Amino acid sequence: MNYTAIRRTLGIILKFEAVFLLLPCITSLVYAESQGVWFLIVAVCSFIIGQLISIKSKDSNFFAKEGFIMVALSWIVMSLVGALPFTLCGDIPNYIDAFFETVSGFTTTGASILTDVEALSHTSLIWRSFTHWIGGMGVFVFILAILPTNGGYNMHLMRAESPGPSVGKLVPRLKDTAKILYMLYFALTVLQIICLLIARMPLFDTLCTAFGTAGTGGFGIKNDSFAGYSVAIQVITAVFMILFGVNFNAYFFLTSKNNKKLAFQMEEVRVYFGIIAVAVILITVNILSMCSGLGDALNKAFFQVGSIITTTGFATADFNLWPELSRTILVVLMFCGACAGSTGGGIKVSRIVIMLKSVKTEIQKYIHPRSVNRVKMDGKPVEEETRRGVSVYLLAYAAIFIFSILIISVDNFDFTTNFTAVTATFNNIGPGLGVVGPAGNYAGYSWLSKLVLIIDMLAGRLELYPILILFAPSVWRKKG
Amino acid sequence: MNYTAIRRTLGIILKFEAVFLLLPCITSLVYAESQGVWFLIVAVCSFIIGQLISIKSKDSNFFAKEGFIMVALSWIVMSLVGALPFTLCGDIPNYIDAFFETVSGFTTTGASILTDVEALSHTSLIWRSFTHWIGGMGVFVFILAILPTNGGYNMHLMRAESPGPSVGKLVPRLKDTAKILYMLYFALTVLQIICLLIARMPLFDTLCTAFGTAGTGGFGIKNDSFAGYSVAIQVITAVFMILFGVNFNAYFFLTSKNNKKLAFQMEEVRVYFGIIAVAVILITVNILSMCSGLGDALNKAFFQVGSIITTTGFATADFNLWPELSRTILVVLMFCGACAGSTGGGIKVSRIVIMLKSVKTEIQKYIHPRSVNRVKMDGKPVEEETRRGVSVYLLAYAAIFIFSILIISVDNFDFTTNFTAVTATFNNIGPGLGVVGPAGNYAGYSWLSKLVLIIDMLAGRLELYPILILFAPSVWRKKG
Repeated sequence: MNYTAIRRTLGIILKFEAVFLLLPCITSLVYAESQGVWFLIVAVCSFIIGQLISIKSKDSNFFAKEGFIMVALSWIVMSLVGALPFTLCGDIPNYIDAFFETVSGFTTTGASILTDVEALSHTSLIWRSFTHWIGGMGVFVFILAILPTNGGYNMHLMRAESPGPSVGKLVPRLKDTAKILYMLYFALTVLQIICLLIARMPLFDTLCTAFGTAGTGGFGIKNDSFAGYSVAIQVITAVFMILFGVNFNAYFFLTSKNNKKLAFQMEEVRVYFGIIAVAVILITVNILSMCSGLGDALNKAFFQVGSIITTTGFATADFNLWPELSRTILVVLMFCGACAGSTGGGIKVSRIVIMLKSVKTEIQKYIHPRSVNRVKMDGKPVEEETRRGVSVYLLAYAAIFIFSILIISVDNFDFTTNFTAVTATFNNIGPGLGVVGPAGNYAGYSWLSKLVLIIDMLAGRLELYPILILFAPSVWRKKG
Repeated sequence: MNYTAIRRTLGIILKFEAVFLLLPCITSLVYAESQGVWFLIVAVCSFIIGQLISIKSKDSNFFAKEGFIMVALSWIVMSLVGALPFTLCGDIPNYIDAFFETVSGFTTTGASILTDVEALSHTSLIWRSFTHWIGGMGVFVFILAILPTNGGYNMHLMRAESPGPSVGKLVPRLKDTAKILYMLYFALTVLQIICLLIARMPLFDTLCTAFGTAGTGGFGIKNDSFAGYSVAIQVITAVFMILFGVNFNAYFFLTSKNNKKLAFQMEEVRVYFGIIAVAVILITVNILSMCSGLGDALNKAFFQVGSIITTTGFATADFNLWPELSRTILVVLMFCGACAGSTGGGIKVSRIVIMLKSVKTEIQKYIHPRSVNRVKMDGKPVEEETRRGVSVYLLAYAAIFIFSILIISVDNFDFTTNFTAVTATFNNIGPGLGVVGPAGNYAGYSWLSKLVLIIDMLAGRLELYPILILFAPSVWRKKG
């Protein structure tokens, strides 16, 4: 194990977090809040410790195993540090709760243990939302984009952090890919802020909303999430949520000269929009009688479907009170998730498509044993290795899921609550049904269950393996 | 498509069903019940029609595709005919309900739409339980065992009907394998009847109980299922449920001269008993405070774990009222199911083991990219083809599961009820949680939902593909 490389990486992460923490510090100056002091102290300490542990460590080579461990440890350390100011400034007195909230932020889950969000200071609120933006595209992708690093082994880091069954390089150099991704991410975020400002949302709210939308996080800054905002703001947010759930490759194709067509031919993106359309129609019809008219129903259905399939988790209505068909559709969308290569979580549309095609091929094989059927995606055959990877991914997914539900059921909440609590954290959504519905929160769970849900959030965001490998004994043996 | 072979098979099935229907006829004579007349009429008609449609059809060759379709159609026809006397004699007036009940019987599910079981005649009750026994080991296995048929293509039928990822031939000739399986099945059933009689259970009850236990079905003949019987009867039934969930290969090894050791070395069987032990301990501790003592808790936990993991579905307590941990463990056991090659349903322990080993191998590959890791079972490497088959099976399983939940959620029952209704029918268990818990039943669902659950029961019992293939358009095209 290359401990030097791991130490160096953690040092870099701490220094970057120190820089990120300046945003809440500035916010506290604007609103003259005292909480900013604690954020500044944590930032300074974080920078000094980061400098100390990364001292004298050179940029050295490492393998996939170390890449996974670096990413997993970095995300954990980042959350442990990011949670400190919440507790120190008194906004979230319990540190386990603050840790849960910060992991929920960085993993873009948006699950909260807070019973009264509006009681928080602006300083804490903006940090809470900003963690979504940092975690959305990934902190390593960010570091790759701006730090001068050498060597192709950074692919290990990017692969461990980026969502989806396979990371495609947009351009030959990985560094340039990371830059393009962040540029698109930044541009879309700014565009949303402008749109929201035009719709007369206050500036502070637009920042928090855009951070939460871009990262597909879902922390709201109001107790009723989005129910209180105007229809215009709701529609803008819904559209942007859906845009951030699109595979970013599509945007790259759109901005290039010759490949515009490719963006519209991407099978995953087309299926993604197809699912959204079907879900919106079904839910609109289903909730029609509860709403003040077709427009209202359509708006609520559109917002919620966009929010859930992209695993954001904002809410304009308490969908926990909707008819069972709508509730079930939303739960299914939680598993589905957004496109690979987007900031959204969940299983990802491309995995679902590959999975369904695999099943179809298997059935065809029974019907015509001698025919050669290959699974194709975007017209190209999917390699057997990728198919196997997707299958095993889903099996590991199911195993973690079941194990989590069993442990948190000790707290004796009802089955729907437990099932959707794991669903909503593991897929990085936020609200579930029952006690953890949009009108509820995760405060009632014991610290053990919160720990399980924290691991689920991390495992979901980092696509299982980095976290699973942490638990593999053979990694930590001397001769690993 | 070889339509002649399909017609011939359906004819044979109808004639066999006519013979099976004689048991309720005899029962009605013993109890002097008028309902027997209808059973006799259906039996006679079934025999005549079977004779007519199979006339002039010779034993001809067919392929896997036709094998699957024969099995699927046979099970459907068998249930359609088996449901007739229930409706004709007036015991279950609604034919859809009678069909649901009969499919539930043949597939050894034990899910019931009856609100008052005790109101049924003895004639109907014994037929209801007898369907479990017929469906348990499989009707084609029975036909293979006693009818003179030629050709190795019968393997297609047996493979389509037998549970588990791979059908092993116990002895070189398939016919002899089928004979051995039915002899073991018959012997164990008789042994249970004797044990129950010694424990002073009435003869009629022992027959129904043994049929339900052997097939791992779960239709009770009392409204409180097994709660009213003595502890001795409960323990005997629990032990036999667990025995019928063991891979029958183990019994074959036990009865052979030289391979007794092999029975105790079977990895699947050992994991099966391990899971039972852990589940019983956890549930005993969890429900201790609700019971009259450790013995009572242990008895209840042992019975329920045995009943659920073998997908039987008898109940000595309303486990719907147990603490959430126990409820969740039971739901997980519903998915797990019994051993392959037993009469139990569910995903099967061997598939779970292969799946977990696949995940472990994948993680090892990330840690040591160059190491060669192969999944092994009972010391022998599992072929890549089998692993792929298990993965795709589970993906198809998940797809059907989600699709079913979505449709039945239209009826607006709560999520727990819908989720466990599909779980309990798809895995051929019977009772779920909530409205379909041990104290409830499936009567409240609409006919559409009942139809979905009927398909789930059949798909679960026949291991998905025969039913899935029925829905594949390419099968029914002329040039298929």
